Amino acid sequence: MTGRKLAAEALGTTLLLISVVGSGIMGESLAGGNTAIALLANAIATGCMLYAIITVLGPISGAHFNPAVTLAFLVRWEIAPAMAVAYVLAQVLGGILGVWITHLMFDLPILQLSTTERAGLGQWSAEAVAMFGLLFVIFGGLAARADSVPTLVALYITGAYWFTASTSFANPAVSIARSLTDTFAGILPAHAPGFIAVQVAATLVSVPLLGWLFRSSK
Amino acid sequence: MTGRKLAAEALGTTLLLISVVGSGIMGESLAGGNTAIALLANAIATGCMLYAIITVLGPISGAHFNPAVTLAFLVRWEIAPAMAVAYVLAQVLGGILGVWITHLMFDLPILQLSTTERAGLGQWSAEAVAMFGLLFVIFGGLAARADSVPTLVALYITGAYWFTASTSFANPAVSIARSLTDTFAGILPAHAPGFIAVQVAATLVSVPLLGWLFRSSK
Amino acid sequence: MTGRKLAAEALGTTLLLISVVGSGIMGESLAGGNTAIALLANAIATGCMLYAIITVLGPISGAHFNPAVTLAFLVRWEIAPAMAVAYVLAQVLGGILGVWITHLMFDLPILQLSTTERAGLGQWSAEAVAMFGLLFVIFGGLAARADSVPTLVALYITGAYWFTASTSFANPAVSIARSLTDTFAGILPAHAPGFIAVQVAATLVSVPLLGWLFRSSK
Amino acid sequence: MTGRKLAAEALGTTLLLISVVGSGIMGESLAGGNTAIALLANAIATGCMLYAIITVLGPISGAHFNPAVTLAFLVRWEIAPAMAVAYVLAQVLGGILGVWITHLMFDLPILQLSTTERAGLGQWSAEAVAMFGLLFVIFGGLAARADSVPTLVALYITGAYWFTASTSFANPAVSIARSLTDTFAGILPAHAPGFIAVQVAATLVSVPLLGWLFRSSK
Repeated sequence: MTGRKLAAEALGTTLLLISVVGSGIMGESLAGGNTAIALLANAIATGCMLYAIITVLGPISGAHFNPAVTLAFLVRWEIAPAMAVAYVLAQVLGGILGVWITHLMFDLPILQLSTTERAGLGQWSAEAVAMFGLLFVIFGGLAARADSVPTLVALYITGAYWFTASTSFANPAVSIARSLTDTFAGILPAHAPGFIAVQVAATLVSVPLLGWLFRSSK
Repeated sequence: MTGRKLAAEALGTTLLLISVVGSGIMGESLAGGNTAIALLANAIATGCMLYAIITVLGPISGAHFNPAVTLAFLVRWEIAPAMAVAYVLAQVLGGILGVWITHLMFDLPILQLSTTERAGLGQWSAEAVAMFGLLFVIFGGLAARADSVPTLVALYITGAYWFTASTSFANPAVSIARSLTDTFAGILPAHAPGFIAVQVAATLVSVPLLGWLFRSSK
Repeated sequence: MTGRKLAAEALGTTLLLISVVGSGIMGESLAGGNTAIALLANAIATGCMLYAIITVLGPISGAHFNPAVTLAFLVRWEIAPAMAVAYVLAQVLGGILGVWITHLMFDLPILQLSTTERAGLGQWSAEAVAMFGLLFVIFGGLAARADSVPTLVALYITGAYWFTASTSFANPAVSIARSLTDTFAGILPAHAPGFIAVQVAATLVSVPLLGWLFRSSK
Repeated sequence: MTGRKLAAEALGTTLLLISVVGSGIMGESLAGGNTAIALLANAIATGCMLYAIITVLGPISGAHFNPAVTLAFLVRWEIAPAMAVAYVLAQVLGGILGVWITHLMFDLPILQLSTTERAGLGQWSAEAVAMFGLLFVIFGGLAARADSVPTLVALYITGAYWFTASTSFANPAVSIARSLTDTFAGILPAHAPGFIAVQVAATLVSVPLLGWLFRSSK
């Protein structure tokens, strides 16, 4: 069963990155400079894929696809430490593979490094909000109505592309993978650690707060 | 339990305002003058967030996030007057906090006042329609199929951004909070009271009408 | 009960026309000549409203809001002739009221006549396809999974704005009402009868075909 | 019952092609050169129709509408070979009919051949990804939560228009039919066999992989 769980985490994160990076490339190439339409396509395509991978792979691995989410379950003692480490490795490797497959599809060089700067107080506070919100819909959704979690995460991220200044990475594996593409969705490799640090810190702060908020509403 | 209810009302309204104001800023900054695309992003992001906060916080506080909705429940004797007052305070403070967090994320001055004029017969009749429609989906949804209320409100507001001339504020706490941002979603502070007066009046007229329409269809 | 049924049919059709005509006006005024974005907003807003009115008013009146749909139920002997006539009147009057309320909201003259030509073999064949498809999702949805009908109709019409050459009126009450607005959604009054004739003919042909196709799949 | 199954497969594929080709024509004609908006409309309209035809016709024929999906069920011994052949014929004929009806609606010559080139390593690898993903949501959805399959396929394809370089044909009947229209959605007839070969190969590789991944998660 562990093999299938790790395969599910890797595959889901691969498909997630294909949706994020691929739709960004397609959007930018067709939108003729109108970045708003590119971001709209990017947001919709990502949301569509999130609904699919969480619905389909949830029964197998729990559908984390995100080291910060795995960390949150670890802090809640709902996943064993060794399994959590394996999950994170599968997510990171899966994410990178997704970026490379996308480059193959769009006839781009496979190995790239992003040059898009994403740093500063605004961007980091945006990632904190984005991360809190993602954990809010996951743990709040599990407490309120577990079968709505795929829809909650999909719609939340579709919206958060627009209402957070950072377009909501909210995922360390995604942050690493997106540093390896110099396209619409990229992030300068030197700026990825800042994003990841904020995501981890926001997770550690959010878990107890959300634990209190949702403690008895199940 | 009261503490968690009020926290839920404040947090939900904070997140609602982040979605409304943040997506407006992002949309306007990317759309290059094509306001239609900015409004489309604004409408979609708001709808996504409404689905999330109503699904997740509904079991805790009932998910009003709106003084007019709280007033409607009060008129129906479904919330105690003291609790209704506390709800409204939580909503107003939460909404203002949401605007300020959004300004922080987008590197804008925290304290602002809007300069966008929104007044006149067209705007006010639009708010009356918008408010009636919102209460129609809430109380009609509760009567017909309670688990569809998050979807009903989310889709209704997404549509109402487009089919009402005022882009559907339909919420006094939102009207106050949006007077504190001089961005896409703003409203001149002097024009907020007009909107709020219409929203309150429309609520008082709509509740008995909807009570008749939906009285026995549960 | 009859009073509430007719009120539901009239109110639903009023709200439907507000969504169709209002979002068309807003879309055209913001899109700066890019008609595709206006139609996208028009399609999304209409779909949102259809989901709302069918979900909420379905338990009261069956949520026809469309004389051709009422005709289909009449042909299937599922509504009494006198009630069918009353339904159609309520739908037509409700639709006209919706157009006038929309003009009020957008500060336009209340009484208008459209000047938009919509006629010819392409348009009429498009209305036949649109009408068949609408009845297909209604009766097929009722046979397959009745609680999905609001979603089916909403998504079908959102798509049909794009894939039929006529943007899918598929509704005689809507065709009449839209002849009374000289805005994005209008239709020349002299061309409305052609649309209505095709809609009625397509209904009469579709009902037995669909009755065969869905006869035992419930 | 066989007659109704084949009618359902033919009709569903007809409607699918109307949605794909029709929305492409409408999108391109309105978007004024902004291909991104045309593709967005194309993706949304196709997703809407997929939700409708899978929900409504699923109980009758299983809602394949796709020779590669029928092949996947054949490889799993879940459809008889003779019936599979009949399904494929119904799908191909239905798809071609859909293209011709669309040309009629848009006042275009009925008989056309596409001149749009779609070939090369990027396009073919994109079709492999697209096909794997489609079978992933179908068989994963059936294992995880069968009633979500219409939504899964609809959202997956809406997203895949953007995140695959080929805009996700992922369907041999669609590939044939789209070679018969020289509009937005067309594919050069000489390039259709390459797409179909990749789709068939990806299906034969994906079925055992997905069989392993989803073997016990029901």
